Amino acid sequence: MSDSVSPLAPDSFPVLPPIAGVALATHAAGIRYENRADLFLAALAEGTSVAGTFTQSLCPSAPVDWCKQVLAEGDGTARAVVCNSGNANAFTGQAGVAAAELTARTIAANLGLEPDSIYLASTGVIGETLPEAPLLAGLPVLAETIAPSSPALWEQAAAAIRTTDTFSKGSAQRIEGAVSHVVGIAKGSGMIAPDMATMLAFVFTDLPVEPDLLQSCLSKAVARSFNRITVDSDTSTSDTVLMFATGEQIDDELISADDPRYPAFQEALDSVLLDLAQQIVRDGEGATKFVEVTVTGASDDRAARTIALAIGNSPLVKTALAAEDANWGRIVMAIGKAGQAADRDAIAIWIGPEQVTAGGVVLDSYSEARATEHLREPEIAIRADVGVGQGEATVWTCDLTHGYIDINAGYRS
Amino acid sequence: MSDSVSPLAPDSFPVLPPIAGVALATHAAGIRYENRADLFLAALAEGTSVAGTFTQSLCPSAPVDWCKQVLAEGDGTARAVVCNSGNANAFTGQAGVAAAELTARTIAANLGLEPDSIYLASTGVIGETLPEAPLLAGLPVLAETIAPSSPALWEQAAAAIRTTDTFSKGSAQRIEGAVSHVVGIAKGSGMIAPDMATMLAFVFTDLPVEPDLLQSCLSKAVARSFNRITVDSDTSTSDTVLMFATGEQIDDELISADDPRYPAFQEALDSVLLDLAQQIVRDGEGATKFVEVTVTGASDDRAARTIALAIGNSPLVKTALAAEDANWGRIVMAIGKAGQAADRDAIAIWIGPEQVTAGGVVLDSYSEARATEHLREPEIAIRADVGVGQGEATVWTCDLTHGYIDINAGYRS
Repeated sequence: MSDSVSPLAPDSFPVLPPIAGVALATHAAGIRYENRADLFLAALAEGTSVAGTFTQSLCPSAPVDWCKQVLAEGDGTARAVVCNSGNANAFTGQAGVAAAELTARTIAANLGLEPDSIYLASTGVIGETLPEAPLLAGLPVLAETIAPSSPALWEQAAAAIRTTDTFSKGSAQRIEGAVSHVVGIAKGSGMIAPDMATMLAFVFTDLPVEPDLLQSCLSKAVARSFNRITVDSDTSTSDTVLMFATGEQIDDELISADDPRYPAFQEALDSVLLDLAQQIVRDGEGATKFVEVTVTGASDDRAARTIALAIGNSPLVKTALAAEDANWGRIVMAIGKAGQAADRDAIAIWIGPEQVTAGGVVLDSYSEARATEHLREPEIAIRADVGVGQGEATVWTCDLTHGYIDINAGYRS
Repeated sequence: MSDSVSPLAPDSFPVLPPIAGVALATHAAGIRYENRADLFLAALAEGTSVAGTFTQSLCPSAPVDWCKQVLAEGDGTARAVVCNSGNANAFTGQAGVAAAELTARTIAANLGLEPDSIYLASTGVIGETLPEAPLLAGLPVLAETIAPSSPALWEQAAAAIRTTDTFSKGSAQRIEGAVSHVVGIAKGSGMIAPDMATMLAFVFTDLPVEPDLLQSCLSKAVARSFNRITVDSDTSTSDTVLMFATGEQIDDELISADDPRYPAFQEALDSVLLDLAQQIVRDGEGATKFVEVTVTGASDDRAARTIALAIGNSPLVKTALAAEDANWGRIVMAIGKAGQAADRDAIAIWIGPEQVTAGGVVLDSYSEARATEHLREPEIAIRADVGVGQGEATVWTCDLTHGYIDINAGYRS
């Protein structure tokens, strides 16, 4: 955890409501950090549905391998999730596999469960073996101190999973027409610093949702949120989003796609994940600007997303935004390098409300002073219409500053 | 041009020999800069073969469009190339097309040539109309002052095409078994800053080479050089490599692929382009380290190049190298995100001569102190074997420093 909080952080941690069927615990096991919690446990009611999405990395961590396997081989239910911060347990070979198994077996033994009902996540340094001693001492304490979820425990949980994060991240939504909620906590700062800043999110609802439907809802929501943000274009070995539906709140009937609560659930889930994703961008390493990039007029939505990410990932665009420099030529450059259809002579660009170009040339009405005024704000909007079709997409990113270099050149050595 | 020269610059500009059939001129036309040459002209003997490779950008500059068209529609010969630095003539609509045509027509009229025998390149700010007045005044002076190529004129030419470059870039090789040479000049610093730091290279030989063969040789050499370097993963609207073979040195017979001089020519061309490409990396914006990244054991050479570029473009790897931090976990991360086959449990990584990992785990023999010692050098070698096949590739990059942010956040506003 950093001493100074991102200038883009929300004012305070939100009040996250209890989720029936979810009990929480945190513990300071001293895996890497001193004097702070580094273990998090959520125990889940019997019959809780589970869904997950994981890093696209071809070198995933041992906990990611574990989760993928129990998710694929299981019956769609889960009883607990355990996370440690401080050691990613990635690129640790057989020792890493053993440490993951030991974690699951220890929690299972202490809670009277089967190991394959336990989900795992780790975040922290790569390539160092996850030490056994703090796990064997700390995991039973976790299991022993577990208590029903509450605003205070959610806030402690969000703090326990942090690494380089400068603030804790949480979000909640009531599901319209139901009494159930969706609650999520996340960590991430830099998308992604593999040493210490993997992106993790744990999301819970007390609405009953069948596992297959839960997976489909989660995948859709992730595509609209975590897969639309970028800080530095890097991808962690450990990125994990796990979703649990306890079903404790309403009744024993699992909702299905034709249930009237289904669209309301998807909407609440989308809202929570988008909020968490945007909080991660707001905690982007060294970020001083929160940037929304919208591309319209692309050949399809996928092409629009590729172009928007080319703009959002360009170091040249991002350094210009840090300098509050209305350097729109770099936006043209990024559109050109994206490799998607674009009509150079029809491109229109906006910086905030100020239209810069139309029909491939700068407008007579364009005022660099007005564009610069917009860039002085902490929240910036950039829009480009590439003039070939109906595809559109929005992504969120931050600027590239000296702070990013300081954090990433400095914190390990 | 910058006041301070890159710490990775060569000691001095090389002595570039005359190329028979190439005459040169430079002129200070005041397009953007004061008190320095910003126009460059090379006039070429009748029958000179031409070849070119251009930016992959879908929003190319007007001069790129011009060159592609005359190259496609012509008979494979060229009589002159003109370059201005200071204005990219990109994203300038019909005015840009007109400025390109005007440049070609003016030079053609002054040299008694056809406009479609004139090749063009521009580098500098995007989106501003290339002003007519300095062109109409300056281009005739260029044509008037032209003189046979010589070491002094090559050095002036290399200086005239610079923008943010901190040193002039040139390279020459004699063709083994011939008296002809290959001579090249280039500019670029940042790969690529569209405002001012497009990558341009102009390459000349007095060996007679047929146009089709010249194109094939150039394409091969570019694939092995300019397409193997990266500073910041950005792509200019204007990147251009033009190659001219005057055929003046030897005889009237154009060499073909079964000519004994052919492999020697390809070798000399490869050598000149690789030297120029590496000079561009050495002038990478803010660079303090020249980094060679080699990937072996990939499924094929293309996969190896993709993985090597993922390492070479990763902001996290590049900031760690700037800090001389042996943060090899970030190399694993970059391999994982490259999307190419890699066997996590067989990956071997070297930092300089020091082997870090084998079989997916860190070696007992690994010494972080020895790895750090290598990282203190200005020239760094990183190697990764990904354990699945025979594919290999080497790319060159530089570190990511505060200097990059200063240059790109600062110089336009």
